[in-house]
Amino acid sequence: MKKNKKISEKYIINNYLKKLNFKKEEAFDFNNDAAFLKIKKNKQLVVTNDTIIESVDFFKNDPPESIANKIVTCNLSDISSMGSSPYSYTLSLCLPNYIKDNWLKKFTKKLKFLQKKYNFFLIGGDISKSDKIIVSSNFFGYSNKGKILKRNGAKINDDIWITGNIGDSSIGLKIRQKKIKINYLDKKYFLNKYLYPLHCSFGNKIFNYATSAIDVSDGFYGDLSNVLQNKKFGASIKKNLIPFSNKVTKLIKNRLIKIDFLLSSGDDYELIFTANPKNSSIIRRISKKNNIKVTKVGKIIRKKGLYLDNKKIKIINKSFDHFA
Amino acid sequence: MKKNKKISEKYIINNYLKKLNFKKEEAFDFNNDAAFLKIKKNKQLVVTNDTIIESVDFFKNDPPESIANKIVTCNLSDISSMGSSPYSYTLSLCLPNYIKDNWLKKFTKKLKFLQKKYNFFLIGGDISKSDKIIVSSNFFGYSNKGKILKRNGAKINDDIWITGNIGDSSIGLKIRQKKIKINYLDKKYFLNKYLYPLHCSFGNKIFNYATSAIDVSDGFYGDLSNVLQNKKFGASIKKNLIPFSNKVTKLIKNRLIKIDFLLSSGDDYELIFTANPKNSSIIRRISKKNNIKVTKVGKIIRKKGLYLDNKKIKIINKSFDHFA
Repeated sequence: MKKNKKISEKYIINNYLKKLNFKKEEAFDFNNDAAFLKIKKNKQLVVTNDTIIESVDFFKNDPPESIANKIVTCNLSDISSMGSSPYSYTLSLCLPNYIKDNWLKKFTKKLKFLQKKYNFFLIGGDISKSDKIIVSSNFFGYSNKGKILKRNGAKINDDIWITGNIGDSSIGLKIRQKKIKINYLDKKYFLNKYLYPLHCSFGNKIFNYATSAIDVSDGFYGDLSNVLQNKKFGASIKKNLIPFSNKVTKLIKNRLIKIDFLLSSGDDYELIFTANPKNSSIIRRISKKNNIKVTKVGKIIRKKGLYLDNKKIKIINKSFDHFA
Repeated sequence: MKKNKKISEKYIINNYLKKLNFKKEEAFDFNNDAAFLKIKKNKQLVVTNDTIIESVDFFKNDPPESIANKIVTCNLSDISSMGSSPYSYTLSLCLPNYIKDNWLKKFTKKLKFLQKKYNFFLIGGDISKSDKIIVSSNFFGYSNKGKILKRNGAKINDDIWITGNIGDSSIGLKIRQKKIKINYLDKKYFLNKYLYPLHCSFGNKIFNYATSAIDVSDGFYGDLSNVLQNKKFGASIKKNLIPFSNKVTKLIKNRLIKIDFLLSSGDDYELIFTANPKNSSIIRRISKKNNIKVTKVGKIIRKKGLYLDNKKIKIINKSFDHFA
C-alpha cells in the first residue's frame, strides 16, 4: 500500500497526524500557522517540553511504538509532577529519509492509543528531515488555580513518598546494552519496562496534600536532591522501605544488581512527593481509590545531605546529564 | 574565561538561559518540571512551533546570532500571521560537543536582544546532545478574543496585500550557495537579509480589517495558494506591483535573477493578507503609522488558479517541502 512514493511533509500531516487532532477546534485541523489554547475557568495552563534523540534517549532500531511511548511519558510525567492533568501537545518530528509508512503507522497508532488513554490531543507540529530521529514536544496541562505542585515546597519533618516501583526500567536498559544476563522471561519483563515506561498520573490527585513533587526521570537520588531546596534541608531514607518489584528484589538478593545503581538510574517516571505527616491517611486513601501504589520511604530532615539508613550518600551524577 | 570545562546542561541553564526568563514568575526560574502560562482578560493564547536544523535550514558554520535570529523570526512570523502579539517561548536545544561558551554567549545575546525588541521571554526548555545543531521552539502569543487571523477567510474580490519586499533573502541564500556572483556591497546586503531576516509584526495591527493572513516562509506563490481555501478561489497578481528592493530590481533588469524564482523561494517572513477593498484606506493609514510598507498586489478571483498578469502559474513546489 502506497509504497515507493515520496513521503512529504504534507503527506505525513494528512495521512497520519490529522488523525491525532481529534478534530478539536484548537488545532484548526492543522490548516493555520498556529493553534490556540483554551482556558478553563479556575484552571491554570501549564507547559513542559522534552526532546528525545536517537542514540541518546533510545536506540536506532527501537520500535516506533517505544519512541512514541517515551515522548508522551517523559512529558506527561512532568505534567503530573506539577499536579496537572493532560490537555494537548505539539510535535516536532525530525525524521531520516528511510522512515516510511510502516514506521509512521506504528508511531502514530501508539500516540493515538496514549491520547485516548490519558485524554489529550495533538494541537500542532512541524516536520523536518534529519540524519537521526529526533522528537521534540511541548505538552500542555491544566492545574487547579493556585495549585501548581512545585519542587521547592518541602518542609522539615515532611514524609517522603514514592509511587510505584524503582529500577525496573534501568535494568531493561542494562539488558538492552548487553551489560547483564538474565533469564528469558525476566528479560522480556524488564525490556518492556524500559521500552514502554508509563508516567504515574497521581500528581493531579494529591496537589492539595503534597508540599512538593518531582518525577523520577534522572534517578531517585538526583531527583530527590532537587526537592531539598538547594541543600537547605536533608533527606533520610530507609533502605528496606524502597519499593522494588519482586523481580528486582530477586536480582538484589542474588547480588546481580546494586541498590545504589537502581537509585541513581533514570527513566522510572514515578513521582517523589513530600507531605506533612498529618496527610498520611488521606494520601493512602487516594492511593487505594486510584489503585496507585505509594510508599513512604523517609523524612525531610534538618541535617543537610542525603542519608540511606543514616549513611551519607555521595551523589556523583547529581542528575543524569543529557548534555555532558 | 571558564575555558576547558565541562559544558553541562545545568551550566548552560545557569549561565546563559536563566538570563532569558527575565525573572517572570511563569518560568519558576527554571527550577520546576514545567512552567505556566498566564491568561489575559479578553485575550486568547495562541501557540506555534518550528524547528530549524543544521544543513537544512542553516549552514554548519553560520554565526550563532543568525541561528538565534532564525528560530525567533520563523516563529514570530507565524504568531504575527495569526494577528497575535508575542508573549513567551520554550527552547529545545540539541547541541554538538564542540559548542562552547563563545557560541552560547553569542547565541543567547542575540535571543536577549530580540526578546527585548519584541517583548517576550523564555519560559522553559530542554538541552540534549546531538551531532548537529537543532533548535526547536514553541512560541506563545496573545490574540484579541475571537480575532485570530486565519488562512481561510479570504472572499472573492478581496484585495491581496503583501508587506515589505520579496526575494532579498533567497538571493542571499543563492550567494551563500555560491550559485550567483555579485559585487561586494550588494553581496553583504543580501547575505545579511538571508542570515538575519526579521518577521513583519503587522498582523496584530490589522486583525480587524484583514480576512486572512499567512506569512511568506516557503515562497510567495506557495503561501498565497494556501489562502485560496483548497483551490476554491483563484488569485490574480500584477507583476509590476510586486514589491522588490532596489537591489533586486537591478538584478531583474540585468537578467541575473528571474521573478519566478523570487516568487517561489522562501524565508521572506513578510505577510500576505487579504482584505475587503473598503478597508484599503484604513490599512494604508495603519501601515503609515507603524512605518510598515504594504503593497496591494492583486485580487482574489472566482476563477481557480494563480495568475500573474493573466498568465496561469504552474506551481511545482507548492510550498518548500522540509521533508522531501
